[in-house]
Amino acid sequence: MKEVVLGLLGLGNIGGGVWDLVQFFGKDVEKRTGLTLQIKKALVLDKKVHGGKDVPDEVLTTERNDILEDPEIQIVCEFLGGEQPAASMMLRALENGKSVVTANKMALSLHFDELRAMAKKTGAGLYYEASVGGAIPVINALTSPLIANHIEQIMGIVNGTTNYILTRMAAEGADYETILKDAQRLGLAEPNPAADVEGMDAAYKLSIMGSLAFHSRVHVEDIYREGITKVTAEDIAFGREMGYVLKLLAIGKDNGDSIEARVHPAFLPADHPLARVDGSLNAIYLYGHSFKDMMLEGRGAGDAPTASAIVGDIVQAAQNAVHPMPYLRPETVPVADDWQSKYFIRMQAKDAPGVLAEVTGLLAGEGISVSAMMQKHAVPGEKATLIVITHSAPEKAVQRVVKALNSDICQVDNVIRVEG
Amino acid sequence: MKEVVLGLLGLGNIGGGVWDLVQFFGKDVEKRTGLTLQIKKALVLDKKVHGGKDVPDEVLTTERNDILEDPEIQIVCEFLGGEQPAASMMLRALENGKSVVTANKMALSLHFDELRAMAKKTGAGLYYEASVGGAIPVINALTSPLIANHIEQIMGIVNGTTNYILTRMAAEGADYETILKDAQRLGLAEPNPAADVEGMDAAYKLSIMGSLAFHSRVHVEDIYREGITKVTAEDIAFGREMGYVLKLLAIGKDNGDSIEARVHPAFLPADHPLARVDGSLNAIYLYGHSFKDMMLEGRGAGDAPTASAIVGDIVQAAQNAVHPMPYLRPETVPVADDWQSKYFIRMQAKDAPGVLAEVTGLLAGEGISVSAMMQKHAVPGEKATLIVITHSAPEKAVQRVVKALNSDICQVDNVIRVEG
Repeated sequence: MKEVVLGLLGLGNIGGGVWDLVQFFGKDVEKRTGLTLQIKKALVLDKKVHGGKDVPDEVLTTERNDILEDPEIQIVCEFLGGEQPAASMMLRALENGKSVVTANKMALSLHFDELRAMAKKTGAGLYYEASVGGAIPVINALTSPLIANHIEQIMGIVNGTTNYILTRMAAEGADYETILKDAQRLGLAEPNPAADVEGMDAAYKLSIMGSLAFHSRVHVEDIYREGITKVTAEDIAFGREMGYVLKLLAIGKDNGDSIEARVHPAFLPADHPLARVDGSLNAIYLYGHSFKDMMLEGRGAGDAPTASAIVGDIVQAAQNAVHPMPYLRPETVPVADDWQSKYFIRMQAKDAPGVLAEVTGLLAGEGISVSAMMQKHAVPGEKATLIVITHSAPEKAVQRVVKALNSDICQVDNVIRVEG
Repeated sequence: MKEVVLGLLGLGNIGGGVWDLVQFFGKDVEKRTGLTLQIKKALVLDKKVHGGKDVPDEVLTTERNDILEDPEIQIVCEFLGGEQPAASMMLRALENGKSVVTANKMALSLHFDELRAMAKKTGAGLYYEASVGGAIPVINALTSPLIANHIEQIMGIVNGTTNYILTRMAAEGADYETILKDAQRLGLAEPNPAADVEGMDAAYKLSIMGSLAFHSRVHVEDIYREGITKVTAEDIAFGREMGYVLKLLAIGKDNGDSIEARVHPAFLPADHPLARVDGSLNAIYLYGHSFKDMMLEGRGAGDAPTASAIVGDIVQAAQNAVHPMPYLRPETVPVADDWQSKYFIRMQAKDAPGVLAEVTGLLAGEGISVSAMMQKHAVPGEKATLIVITHSAPEKAVQRVVKALNSDICQVDNVIRVEG
């Protein structure tokens, strides 16, 4: 048996989940791996409050150096969340030769280069399976079993809160604000939901997955990002009528000389494998030149699934004599600011002769052809709702058309990309 | 750069796929991993026939010892298929300290213990991601990221041929024999399809997955096995009417003191994630105590997806200084010969007073309650088709009822388990 001495930075939901899993499943992990996991210290803000967990007093500390500077601690697990002080604490642990296991997509995404460089320098390992998709082993798949692939595409539902909201909006025909409030009441959305509903959380995760899949650094600030706050029950209902399901997608594509990286609501055909991934489930669809299409689906959040991924990483960190580091291409591959998609354009158009001709004319002028069109609730003399779904077209051209469409005879209410 | 010298046993579809992937993607693998893959020798039956691949003559050999006994060759990749001579050649390679990568579920499943023991003895590695689910990284997931779980259930669609046949039977309302013949004509089913349609292929795969997931040796001869040859278009149609989709499932459950391991056709609720895994796709649904539910889906066969898994394994074999071996419990855990399922029972019953009472009475006598019942095409005086779907009940009790039901007033045409 080999003893593995651990320090936990944080003992909230995830830290507590890891504490529990190590207590109740440690013996099994020992039998299976020969590793005895021992949590020596857990950093907390206040020793009196530690989530009601049955943690001995001598394990608790309010002093980070009890973990970061203890030479006996081999692996530091970070559950603080947020950028700082998490990032600098991870950096210090790596500097001291300790391997780091983290679930913190924000700190990891923003400080990926420094953390990797420090790990490389000291020979420590950096593990982050839990940072994307909870228990779903997507980080592991990208770094190891799928290594012999040019990965062309990633498309993920990686934020449980927004997927829960969109699933309920679709099921109940309810508006965003109504469901958000209820999700907040149920503890399924944060009091300040911005990180989720504005797509930041998904963007951090896409930054990590994209950097690994495309072997090129995808910085979070280069990711196009649009949240779900403008999505209406009406959009979802019209989309459904036309055969589509709305999801918040994190999309990455490797076009060779450029990379696409974008987080936005998107309609998927109802028979797309991601379309039925509902509620708090996460799923990542991948396409690689040799493995072809693949989908990994599971619990993207929650104490137990996240702890599952963390302990999986701890075992790998303890077993790997040499820590594998993902290869990134030395050249900078630009993240594209234009791309091809299909577009669902919902507008109110004056019920007057020539309006349809003007709309279709503007689209044709940009070389955009129409795949489907639907007009609704036309009361003579009033504005009618008009939905256009385009064939594949450049983002920028569509934005120009949308700008031109907004005039006294027409008002564009929403534009939603159609993928898959 | 570290050179990795490989020997291939076989250069058919999979071997050729690996040859191609190493030729066309070897430079990328080198950049990403620091490993230069060099295929030194490939064993073929006849040097003149090597699948039209552009393989230099000096690489080809008809002499196994050119690979197994060459001290320069570090990793042996086995693509011969079948039990022998594949198993003894893998054993010899391991004995000589060479790591083995294989896609051969049959040889692996039947000789798992010997191969593992030899690998342990000499410190060589044994890798077999491609043996189950092609490119889907399920072996990797079970052996590493999901290690901190009591895995309670595996349910897989792991045979592409039968899934293709069942998908087409459902889509076209056609009978088994018709679609089988067409699949054979298209090269999607073997001229002798027994290994696929009788469930042997799925049983080998379940043996491997189950042994890893439950940390207990699941021998293929202990797996209950029933193929798809008795499934009719009628069964599929009636099932659909009642909300079910038919699949050939490989099911494993860990009940603590016993293990369930069975391969048989099964109805799944139409909204189950496995229900829409169609055609040649494979998918494995897993339930673990900490990761909860997960599904991994992708291409279970084909040259390129299989080669993707093989090269992934080669990289791991070359990178791992110490080769991880799955832990198996020392005690023998029996594979159950009875289990709980729900049952779809299709029978022809005489249209006479008291028949329904007799059927339901027999079920009640075994303590089996009825979840749904449907009677079809009752022409007065002729036999009517009667479908019963039970609530969860013991297999053996249902078999007793089926035996008792077969009488002069009733004939059971098919019994299909209902899972999910």
